[in-house]
Amino acid sequence: MQVMIDLCVVPLGVGVSVSEYVAACQRILREAGLSYQMHAYGTNIEGEWDEVFAAVKRCHEVLHDMGAPRITSSLRVGTRTDRDQTMTDKISSVEEKLSGDA
Amino acid sequence: MQVMIDLCVVPLGVGVSVSEYVAACQRILREAGLSYQMHAYGTNIEGEWDEVFAAVKRCHEVLHDMGAPRITSSLRVGTRTDRDQTMTDKISSVEEKLSGDA
Amino acid sequence: MQVMIDLCVVPLGVGVSVSEYVAACQRILREAGLSYQMHAYGTNIEGEWDEVFAAVKRCHEVLHDMGAPRITSSLRVGTRTDRDQTMTDKISSVEEKLSGDA
Amino acid sequence: MQVMIDLCVVPLGVGVSVSEYVAACQRILREAGLSYQMHAYGTNIEGEWDEVFAAVKRCHEVLHDMGAPRITSSLRVGTRTDRDQTMTDKISSVEEKLSGDA
Repeated sequence: MQVMIDLCVVPLGVGVSVSEYVAACQRILREAGLSYQMHAYGTNIEGEWDEVFAAVKRCHEVLHDMGAPRITSSLRVGTRTDRDQTMTDKISSVEEKLSGDA
Repeated sequence: MQVMIDLCVVPLGVGVSVSEYVAACQRILREAGLSYQMHAYGTNIEGEWDEVFAAVKRCHEVLHDMGAPRITSSLRVGTRTDRDQTMTDKISSVEEKLSGDA
Repeated sequence: MQVMIDLCVVPLGVGVSVSEYVAACQRILREAGLSYQMHAYGTNIEGEWDEVFAAVKRCHEVLHDMGAPRITSSLRVGTRTDRDQTMTDKISSVEEKLSGDA
Repeated sequence: MQVMIDLCVVPLGVGVSVSEYVAACQRILREAGLSYQMHAYGTNIEGEWDEVFAAVKRCHEVLHDMGAPRITSSLRVGTRTDRDQTMTDKISSVEEKLSGDA
């Protein structure tokens, strides 16, 4: 089963600057060979369910190893059986509808 | 790794009434032997990471089998290494602080 | 417009124990006269849109005043025009479907 | 109070294709003069708290007017008092840390 998720990992107990933890997650996604795209409040990831969630688990494990005693993540998780749709398809579909605007 | 999650599964393309789908997810959690508690906008679940996420995957699979062509879930996912804390502990900790209020 | 939300407020930069901050939010909801129910990973709140979101804003303001330099919240926000449905209705609707299970 | 949010609006009861509803939300954000950036599973928005949440409310109102009987949105909401940080700053901060990777 293919899945598209949006992941935002928040380490607690390590101060207010979390960019090094977000960078560590980006490396995990890259090493996992997943398709992903960071934005300003999370990261879109797509792939096979088990591979995607193995990477999410790895993010929690690595951030704990980096010293974060507590982590709270928020995720959106999307699956569909009616047709294939990539991250790019979803954006194109909306932009097409907006393109007719004056 | 123990995890506590909050899960809200939303089937699309099946109309506005989703309670039978939510009920199906509750049965999956019960059969998985997980500790869980439904509330009005999701369900708290705690257990071993792999068991909890196997149940989340099963919810998506079963709802697709029930006829939902598209599913979008939202999750909060919490892990901590500093101490064990159950769902009941979290609530008690806040209620204790409120108990001193007149 | 009536709204039902699920709110989880996470203060950053104040260590791993956040129960006093969660307790402060519960007091804000109580003082606002809103209908709410805390669970282990957030709080269900229902009421008029403007009143509910005024309380959410107040939570952020008060937690900053308590010393949290950074806050990230996650929310689910539900509205419907087809019928009235309270938090209790939603739970009852699912439990009714489960009640037939052996 | 400045806020950065990530918003994903999901209309129920209108079938599986929701791109026209997402497009309507993009128009609302544009007309509100807010800074925003769509991604494949939501939209980053930044601005003054009251203006941002007025736009979120407007999205729910307009989608109901378009015929959606039920809407469930998921949001992340971030505020900070320690310093100003735009959507671009957040991404740059992570990319800088990744740039040293071979």
